[in-house]
Amino acid sequence: MRDTGLDRRTILQGAAAGAAMLGSASALAASGDTKAIQAAVEKGHDAAIKRIQEWIALPSIAAENRDMPKGADYMAALAKDAGFQHVEIVSTDGHPGVFATLDAGAARTIGLYFMYDVKQFDPAEWSSPPTEARIVDKPGLGRAIVGRGAINQKGPEATFLAALHAIRAAGRKLPVNLVLVAEGEEEIGSPHFAQIVRRPDIAAKLKACPCVFMPFAAQGSDGEVSVNLGAKGVIECELVATGESWGRGPAKDVHSSLKAMLDSPVWRLVQALQTLVSADGNSIAIDGWNDRVRPLSAREKALIAADASASSEADMMKAFGVKHWIGDLAWQPANERLAAAPTANIEGLVAGYTGQGGKTILPHKGVAKMDFRLVPDQTHDDCVAKLKAHLSKRGFGDIQINVSGGYDPTETAEDSALIRTSLATYQKLGVSPTLNPRLAGSWPGYVFTGAPLSLPAGHFGLGHGSGAHAPDEYYLIEPSNAKIAGLDRATMSYVEFLYALAARA
Amino acid sequence: MRDTGLDRRTILQGAAAGAAMLGSASALAASGDTKAIQAAVEKGHDAAIKRIQEWIALPSIAAENRDMPKGADYMAALAKDAGFQHVEIVSTDGHPGVFATLDAGAARTIGLYFMYDVKQFDPAEWSSPPTEARIVDKPGLGRAIVGRGAINQKGPEATFLAALHAIRAAGRKLPVNLVLVAEGEEEIGSPHFAQIVRRPDIAAKLKACPCVFMPFAAQGSDGEVSVNLGAKGVIECELVATGESWGRGPAKDVHSSLKAMLDSPVWRLVQALQTLVSADGNSIAIDGWNDRVRPLSAREKALIAADASASSEADMMKAFGVKHWIGDLAWQPANERLAAAPTANIEGLVAGYTGQGGKTILPHKGVAKMDFRLVPDQTHDDCVAKLKAHLSKRGFGDIQINVSGGYDPTETAEDSALIRTSLATYQKLGVSPTLNPRLAGSWPGYVFTGAPLSLPAGHFGLGHGSGAHAPDEYYLIEPSNAKIAGLDRATMSYVEFLYALAARA
Repeated sequence: MRDTGLDRRTILQGAAAGAAMLGSASALAASGDTKAIQAAVEKGHDAAIKRIQEWIALPSIAAENRDMPKGADYMAALAKDAGFQHVEIVSTDGHPGVFATLDAGAARTIGLYFMYDVKQFDPAEWSSPPTEARIVDKPGLGRAIVGRGAINQKGPEATFLAALHAIRAAGRKLPVNLVLVAEGEEEIGSPHFAQIVRRPDIAAKLKACPCVFMPFAAQGSDGEVSVNLGAKGVIECELVATGESWGRGPAKDVHSSLKAMLDSPVWRLVQALQTLVSADGNSIAIDGWNDRVRPLSAREKALIAADASASSEADMMKAFGVKHWIGDLAWQPANERLAAAPTANIEGLVAGYTGQGGKTILPHKGVAKMDFRLVPDQTHDDCVAKLKAHLSKRGFGDIQINVSGGYDPTETAEDSALIRTSLATYQKLGVSPTLNPRLAGSWPGYVFTGAPLSLPAGHFGLGHGSGAHAPDEYYLIEPSNAKIAGLDRATMSYVEFLYALAARA
Repeated sequence: MRDTGLDRRTILQGAAAGAAMLGSASALAASGDTKAIQAAVEKGHDAAIKRIQEWIALPSIAAENRDMPKGADYMAALAKDAGFQHVEIVSTDGHPGVFATLDAGAARTIGLYFMYDVKQFDPAEWSSPPTEARIVDKPGLGRAIVGRGAINQKGPEATFLAALHAIRAAGRKLPVNLVLVAEGEEEIGSPHFAQIVRRPDIAAKLKACPCVFMPFAAQGSDGEVSVNLGAKGVIECELVATGESWGRGPAKDVHSSLKAMLDSPVWRLVQALQTLVSADGNSIAIDGWNDRVRPLSAREKALIAADASASSEADMMKAFGVKHWIGDLAWQPANERLAAAPTANIEGLVAGYTGQGGKTILPHKGVAKMDFRLVPDQTHDDCVAKLKAHLSKRGFGDIQINVSGGYDPTETAEDSALIRTSLATYQKLGVSPTLNPRLAGSWPGYVFTGAPLSLPAGHFGLGHGSGAHAPDEYYLIEPSNAKIAGLDRATMSYVEFLYALAARA
C-alpha cells in the first residue's frame, strides 16, 4: 500500500464507531471448518514465514528497473502455488502485472488487488540487511520480520496466501472464487495498472465480483483498526526548468559570475513554483484547482470528530516534531483538513551543486519533485491539465511537467457490502474498528471504484507492522501485545473474511 | 584563482588597449643575466614539472577538510626550498596559512599571494586520475599536465617558484625581496585570510611592498592576455529553512499526505527566495542592496566597448549554449552588465528526496546554496546585514543565513606601478594585453587593496591552462600554438617581471 507511511491508527486512539454487527456466530464458525483450518494454519506457520522471507529476498523496484520481470514471474508462481488455476503475466506499456483466477466452484467471486513491487531502500540506513528478512526482537513490540516489503505489502499478501494454503491443506474448498490482479508499479504511482484492470477479459471477470480488496495488516501498534472509506488521489511529477527548453540562460552549468549577463533557469523554477500556492504555502493557487473540491458531508465530519476527540493531539505533535497545525487550526479542524484538503507538496528540490559546501556555478537546470493529493471530485487528468494551463498562462509554458504516476481519488460507500462485512468481521475477531472517511494518503482503488467497474474496494486484515518506505520496515509475527494478531491469527482473519464474504446476504 | 572558470580571453579576441611601453631593452636584458638564467630554467625543466606533479598529488580541500595541515606544511616546504629564509605556518580560526620572507638584500620588496588548496573533484568524471598529474597530449593544444590544481593554482605558482630556483641556480641574486602570504581556504571564499594578512608583523611587512601579485597563467587559448583592474566581491552562503527553526512544519521528514495539516519548510524557502529578485530573476530586490553600486566610469565603458567590438558574440553564445543575454541586451551592454551588475545566483537547491524518481515525503528542511557578486562600493559585511534585514522584515527571520565565505570587491588603479609594469612586461614578452575594468568573478584581492594596506594587487604570468573547478583541469607545458608560453617561457616571464619591478622608476 502506497501510503501506510501515515498510519494514523498508531497515533490516533479512536473509539469504535458504529460497526455493523452480525447477530450470530460467524460464517466460518457456522461452517464447522474452523478447527481443521486453524490446525492447518499452525502446521503451515514455518512455511508461511519462509514464504514472506523468500519473497522479500527478491526486491522488485520499478523506479530503479530492478528485477521487474523476475518479480512478476515470482508473483505468478506464488499465485499458482496457492491454488490459482489460471495465472498469466500481463504486459503493459510499463512493467508487467499478473492476472490470476481461482475457480473453487463457489457461487460468489471476490476480487483481489496485490502489488509485487517495493520502495527503494538504502541498506546503510538499516539495522539488519533489508533483503535478508531476518526475524528480530523489537523491544516492546515482539518478534518481527524486518525487511523491505515486510509490511508494504508482501507480509500481509503472503499471509493471505497462507490462508489459501491452509484451507486447501485442511481439505476444504474455498468458499469463494478469486480474481487476482497484481501490479509492479504501485510505488511509482501505478501508471499502467489501468491497462491491466481494463483489459476486456480481466475487466469482465472483475465486473462479476461484488468487491475488491487488498490484504492489509490493519492494526495499529495499539491493536486498533481504522477502516478507510476512501483515499485521496495523487499526481506525482517533476517540474523541470532548463536553459534548453526556455531558450534563455545557459545550456550547461557555467561559472556563476556569468549570472550578470545570463538568465537563471533555477530562479525561473523558483518563480514558477511560488505561483502554485498561497504565500504561506498552504492553499493551492493553481487556476481552477479547487473548483471540484467536494466539502465534507455531515457524516464525514461526525466520523472525524469522533476520531479526533478520542485521540491525542499532543502525541501526534510529538510523533511529527510539530508545534502548530496549518493556520494554527485546532485539533478537529486540522483533522478535517487532513481528510478534505487537496495538497501541493514539494518532495524534493534538486538543482546545480548539491554536495558539501558551495560551488560557484550557474546551473542550467532546476527540478522540483512534487506530489499533489486530490480529493473527490477532482481527477488526475483534469488537475494535470490545470497545472499545465496555469503555468502556460503565466509564461512558464517551457517548464516541463513530467508526470511519473498518479490516479484519481477513490471512495467506497459506508453501506456497501464490503465495508459492512469488513466491520462485522473485525468485530467477530474481537476488534472494534473506527471509520475514517478518507485516507490522506493514496492507493489506486479508483481503478476499481471508478468507471467502468464501479466496485467497492478497500483493505482488510489483522496484524501490525510499520516503517513502509522507511528503514527497518517490519511485520510482527509474534506480537507482545495480545490485542495484536500474530501471523497465525492474521492468517485466520483472512479465512474469516472469505467465509463472511461468501455467506453475506 | 577562484574564478578562472570565466576565462574571457579564451572567448573574447580583444585588441591591445593602450599598454604602457618601456622605451628600451627590458630590465632583465639590461642586467646581462638573461642567458645564465635561461640556461638554468632549461636545466631545471624536468625538476619544475616534477614539482608541479608532486604538489598536485597532495590535494588539500578545505570544504572536505582534506589534508589541510599537510597542505600548509607542503606549501611551507616549497617556499623554504625556493629560498625563503623565514617560513612560518600561520594558524587561523579556520585552516592554517603560510607566511614567508625572502631577503635578497635588494632595495625593494614585492608581495606575493599564493593558495595551496584546490577545488573538490570527482575522479569518475576525469579522463586521467586527477591526483596523478599525468602529462597528456591535448589535441590542438599541446602537451599538458592534467590534474586538480594544474591551472588553479599550483601550476602557475610552482612555475613562479621555478623562476626563483633558476635565478639561484644561475648564481644570481633575486632583484627584489619577497613577502609571501599563502592560504588554504581560497576555494571556500577565503573566510580567514584576513587573519593572516592583518597579523601586525605580517601586515607591516606587506605594507612596505609597492604591490602584491599572484602567479597566473594569463594567456587565453589564443595566446592573448587581459589584465584585470579589479574583481567583484562575493558572498557565499546557504539559506536554510527548517521546521525546527521556523517552529512550524515537521522537525523531520514525514509522509507527504500530512501536507494537508502541516506547513512546509520547502515552500517557505521558495517564498523567501522569490523576494530576493525581480520576477525575471535578474535584478536584486533586497532592500537597499543597490544603494552603493557605483556606475561604470567613462574610461571603464570605453575599455569594455573596445573589448566587445573586438570579440565574437556568436562564439561566446556558442561556448555557453546561450541564445539571449539578460533582457535581450546587445553585446556591448551585456558586457557592461557583466562588469557592473551585482548578482544573486542560486548555485544549488537541495531539499527532501533528491534521488531517482519520487518519494512521497514532506521534507523538514530546504537549502539554497547561493552566491552574491558585489561591485564597488558594496561591501561583504554590509550586504550580509542587508540580506538578513530583508528576510527578517518579511517575517523570514527564522531562515538561517550560513555564510561560508566571501569578501569585498577589489580594485587596482590603471596608473599604478603594478598595472603599468605588468602591461609593459607583457609587451616585452611579445604579448599585447587588453585591460578589463573588472573581472566578473572574484578573488580576495580586497585584503591587499582595501584598508589598511591599500596596495595595488593583481595577477601576472604567461602560460595557459583551463578547467579550473571542472574535470580534466590542465596546464600547458609544451603548447602547439607558438603564441602561448610553455613551461620555460612562463618561468622566464616571472624572471622578467621581477627584474622589471626592481628596475621601475
